[in-house]
Amino acid sequence: MTAKTAPSLEEIQAAQRRIAGIARVTPVYSSETFSRLTGRPVHLKAENLQRTGAFKVRGAVNKIALLTPEERAAGVVTASAGNHGQAVAWAAREAGAHARIFMPHHTPMAKIEATRNYGAQTHLQGETFEEALAAALDHAEERDATFLHAFEDEDVIAGQGTIGLELLEQVPNFETVVIPIGGGGLASGIALAIRAVKPEARLVGVQAAAYAPLVGGRIGGVTIAEGIAVKHPGELTSSILREVLDDIVIVSDEEISQAIVLLLERTKLVVEGAGAASVAALLADRVGGNGPVVAVLSGGNIDPTLLISVMRHGLSLSGRYLVLRTRLTDRPGELIKLLSLVADEMGNVLSVEHHREGMDMPVIESEVELTLMMRDQAHCTALVAALEANGYPVERMQ
Amino acid sequence: MTAKTAPSLEEIQAAQRRIAGIARVTPVYSSETFSRLTGRPVHLKAENLQRTGAFKVRGAVNKIALLTPEERAAGVVTASAGNHGQAVAWAAREAGAHARIFMPHHTPMAKIEATRNYGAQTHLQGETFEEALAAALDHAEERDATFLHAFEDEDVIAGQGTIGLELLEQVPNFETVVIPIGGGGLASGIALAIRAVKPEARLVGVQAAAYAPLVGGRIGGVTIAEGIAVKHPGELTSSILREVLDDIVIVSDEEISQAIVLLLERTKLVVEGAGAASVAALLADRVGGNGPVVAVLSGGNIDPTLLISVMRHGLSLSGRYLVLRTRLTDRPGELIKLLSLVADEMGNVLSVEHHREGMDMPVIESEVELTLMMRDQAHCTALVAALEANGYPVERMQ
Repeated sequence: MTAKTAPSLEEIQAAQRRIAGIARVTPVYSSETFSRLTGRPVHLKAENLQRTGAFKVRGAVNKIALLTPEERAAGVVTASAGNHGQAVAWAAREAGAHARIFMPHHTPMAKIEATRNYGAQTHLQGETFEEALAAALDHAEERDATFLHAFEDEDVIAGQGTIGLELLEQVPNFETVVIPIGGGGLASGIALAIRAVKPEARLVGVQAAAYAPLVGGRIGGVTIAEGIAVKHPGELTSSILREVLDDIVIVSDEEISQAIVLLLERTKLVVEGAGAASVAALLADRVGGNGPVVAVLSGGNIDPTLLISVMRHGLSLSGRYLVLRTRLTDRPGELIKLLSLVADEMGNVLSVEHHREGMDMPVIESEVELTLMMRDQAHCTALVAALEANGYPVERMQ
Repeated sequence: MTAKTAPSLEEIQAAQRRIAGIARVTPVYSSETFSRLTGRPVHLKAENLQRTGAFKVRGAVNKIALLTPEERAAGVVTASAGNHGQAVAWAAREAGAHARIFMPHHTPMAKIEATRNYGAQTHLQGETFEEALAAALDHAEERDATFLHAFEDEDVIAGQGTIGLELLEQVPNFETVVIPIGGGGLASGIALAIRAVKPEARLVGVQAAAYAPLVGGRIGGVTIAEGIAVKHPGELTSSILREVLDDIVIVSDEEISQAIVLLLERTKLVVEGAGAASVAALLADRVGGNGPVVAVLSGGNIDPTLLISVMRHGLSLSGRYLVLRTRLTDRPGELIKLLSLVADEMGNVLSVEHHREGMDMPVIESEVELTLMMRDQAHCTALVAALEANGYPVERMQ
């Protein structure tokens, strides 16, 4: 059992040598849009472009590299339906070790298959994550396999800390770094590496409002930032974070959603909820500090159906989507009259649904639902006003 | 006026020095998923992560760098509602030159604003692209400004060719390169650079089925690959492409859509239709050759509402989305019975729409539309069969 102490700078540097050529050195992008929106130079550390789509492989590769040949032969075990499970599966395969990943029953097939595709054996056990975890621990003990914790492990923390070393080279003049916090391994590792080399840096952690145990906030609920929805950060990571962070701030799901959409549109990067939390905190002006800032985009594994909802919602909020219902006298030419008016107002029609069958409508009227692509909220307001001025009753749906 | 001859390797190397530190050296990603699907190592050249979201800035920066101080002071002019217009706006601003971009009336506001945000002056003129182009040419002549053609210009071609030089360094062992063709500037530049250094490389161009003039195909229609929907490639570029390409293949919008969705899910990259055409050709096994292959992702500027439709469509095709309608006897508990059956079959409910008001339904029945997240087509078929076996009439919508 590894002693639970914070890894030193030397241990993080050793991790960097171990993961070289296996995990990717991910790129950093300076973002004109985010710099303009926040009034300071913004750099994005794209761990969504890491192997398996998240930073977790760094810790997993480092941990597995440190196993003895006997331990490696006995295989590794963990419990995770998410990024950590996929990272362990991938890192084990790269090292030629066997991996068993435990997940609760009813884990979405997409996640099970992603883990299997990396060559791991998956075990569906228990109704909750805690039950799957207990099964994984039992299994590791029975088989003398190594249980690989997602964050409460100094070798895993050292692996995640390699991001900090990369940032010191890639963005030499940064003043602030913003890091999402779930279990705390990522933030611990990055902050330890940076504090050791550049003690004056401002280091800020971000939690999702639904899971903010480190600031005495809520610990439970549904959030779009699944990857940082951790009820209990580790003892080791919590004590490290108390030492090395300057501040921990929280962001709402609404703020995270908007960050996801902006990242997608402006930087062409797909970022999951947890990964966009750092950008959300920046945009909400909660980060503090002044100079150049790095936002760590921790991962990109967002369910595509969730991404679709987030995009639709984000576009509606910014007035880019307008869904409205109105009524027409049911005679030829009325729909064309309505659509001409919409065109005059420069509304870009995406879909028209025409309902004639409503029982609660007078038979001489029909209902039309229009989905329009608009410029912004002011454009939406103007278009609705124009329809109303022409006698159309308008119900705005989105 | 620049003489219309193919740029030499030396001119492309000079372009590389000129654009260094202004345009980005974009990263190359090896993709495990695409390598598995195609049976050969696949590398993706991510020009979607280029400044302004597409390769076009390379040519624009090189062209503007070659202007005399007098020419630069007189400003640059072009006609484009897309990537070229944004690239010229951006490159002109970086060089401290004034840019005027002509677009037809009714250009979507998002495109006008993207161009304005880079500091250019936009002019909406004419009903068609051809009319906007004529206005831009007139304007350039009147003001003695430089008209910047999107592809029929050796300095622009040399700029795009820098991608080829980067690939020779980034992926030394590639055997084949796949490049989208619209006007032909991108493919000409890359192919000239690579032919000069590595004459044995296989170089394949890709056109969208709706605009395939170079292979005697259709030239017109609606396509998702807007960026390569060019009716008439240049004379210069066409003659270069005849010399340097081994083959030109075409891909359908359906194939491009699926490539967009896979790129988004597996590589976390947002890629526009034209940009995904190279990957689509690879996945359709139309590229030929054997060894490691590079697919050039030419850009990432896809309208978010279009991206949403593409994602929904892609998820439906692969059986990940199932939308179905069925009918219930309208009494308490019937909806729960239906949903329990869906849960038994592991369907993941995304939305339930319950319509009671249909005039064409017996009053004791109501209609339910379910949107479900599924594993694959076989899973969809099994769930529909289970519902039907339990007496539910099922109409599959997607």
